[in-house]
Amino acid sequence: MKSAILILSGPSGAGKSSIISAAADKIGDFYFSISSTSRQPREGEVDGRDYHFVDKEEFERGIESGDFLEYAVVHGNYYGTSLKLVREALDAGRLVIFDIDVQGYHLAKAKMGDLITSAFILPPSLSELEYRLKARATDRDDVISKRVENAKKEIKEIGAYDFVIVNDDLDRAAGEFVAVANAARLKLSNKERELFVKNWLSS
Amino acid sequence: MKSAILILSGPSGAGKSSIISAAADKIGDFYFSISSTSRQPREGEVDGRDYHFVDKEEFERGIESGDFLEYAVVHGNYYGTSLKLVREALDAGRLVIFDIDVQGYHLAKAKMGDLITSAFILPPSLSELEYRLKARATDRDDVISKRVENAKKEIKEIGAYDFVIVNDDLDRAAGEFVAVANAARLKLSNKERELFVKNWLSS
Repeated sequence: MKSAILILSGPSGAGKSSIISAAADKIGDFYFSISSTSRQPREGEVDGRDYHFVDKEEFERGIESGDFLEYAVVHGNYYGTSLKLVREALDAGRLVIFDIDVQGYHLAKAKMGDLITSAFILPPSLSELEYRLKARATDRDDVISKRVENAKKEIKEIGAYDFVIVNDDLDRAAGEFVAVANAARLKLSNKERELFVKNWLSS
Repeated sequence: MKSAILILSGPSGAGKSSIISAAADKIGDFYFSISSTSRQPREGEVDGRDYHFVDKEEFERGIESGDFLEYAVVHGNYYGTSLKLVREALDAGRLVIFDIDVQGYHLAKAKMGDLITSAFILPPSLSELEYRLKARATDRDDVISKRVENAKKEIKEIGAYDFVIVNDDLDRAAGEFVAVANAARLKLSNKERELFVKNWLSS
């Protein structure tokens, strides 16, 4: 299967992780892109699962040599997506899946737009989003409020996405995600297209 | 399921009809758009299967009242796609599938681009295309040559399409078509998106 990039955005609480888990055995080999950070691991965080933990100097050398698809500094710590890991996964024919916010999507699209298919995933309603965030009880009330406000802003940008998945039923949403992921593999990058046309015409 | 438009292009001999038949029970309710024409039916042609046969005056009244998504005159006869039939199918929640050429695709995109997902379907190679056209023995040699020349021109425009399906194995191509068709339903038109965002925010 051909490599491709699939970008997922949507509020925390949309169920993106559950959808990917439910769809994992129906979309071929994929690489879920994990951010790199220069901050210290927190209790319970695992290197390579939650983040790729690298030291500040290594991160800065990476920036110097253009190794990040996008990066930001938050509270003095670097966070970013290693282009090297993405490229390795693409070279191995994998579907590279990103879970990033709308801003990160625009940055990635500016750099590798011809490789990217995108989907915005969201819960069926604003009230359901609030309910899910409260029910999972991992965030403080002020964090939940901030997430909800953020979702209200982000949903206004869904027009920038190719597809919209509403997660009111996990099975159905996972099925829709499978369709989007498998369609994403059928998108040719500019480079792939040039080669394809050349080969086809001489075959 | 939500309605949407899926446009398929690709050379005669790519196997578009076989792919749609093989995928038909996995893509929900759909309407395969059939062109209208003012020319007389040829032997073996069936009204509503090969074309919608209408008389010249009726066709011209349709043009006057803006009832065609696109139309052309060939050898003095009208050929076109009735917007009314497309709209009825969309209102019924169907996926409307078009098999049109690159030029028709651009015309449709200019009119209803926000509703359209597109795929270019082609045989694995130029020599395979020639082989298939000769094997089915329905066209004269000069017609086959013309189809092959046309395919060479059209493949250079695949960059205008969202997805590319190579039909070297019918099962695989049909599976890819299912993914594209089901993803197409997840694309929101401008009107649908406005309504969706409004409803979501107030829910």
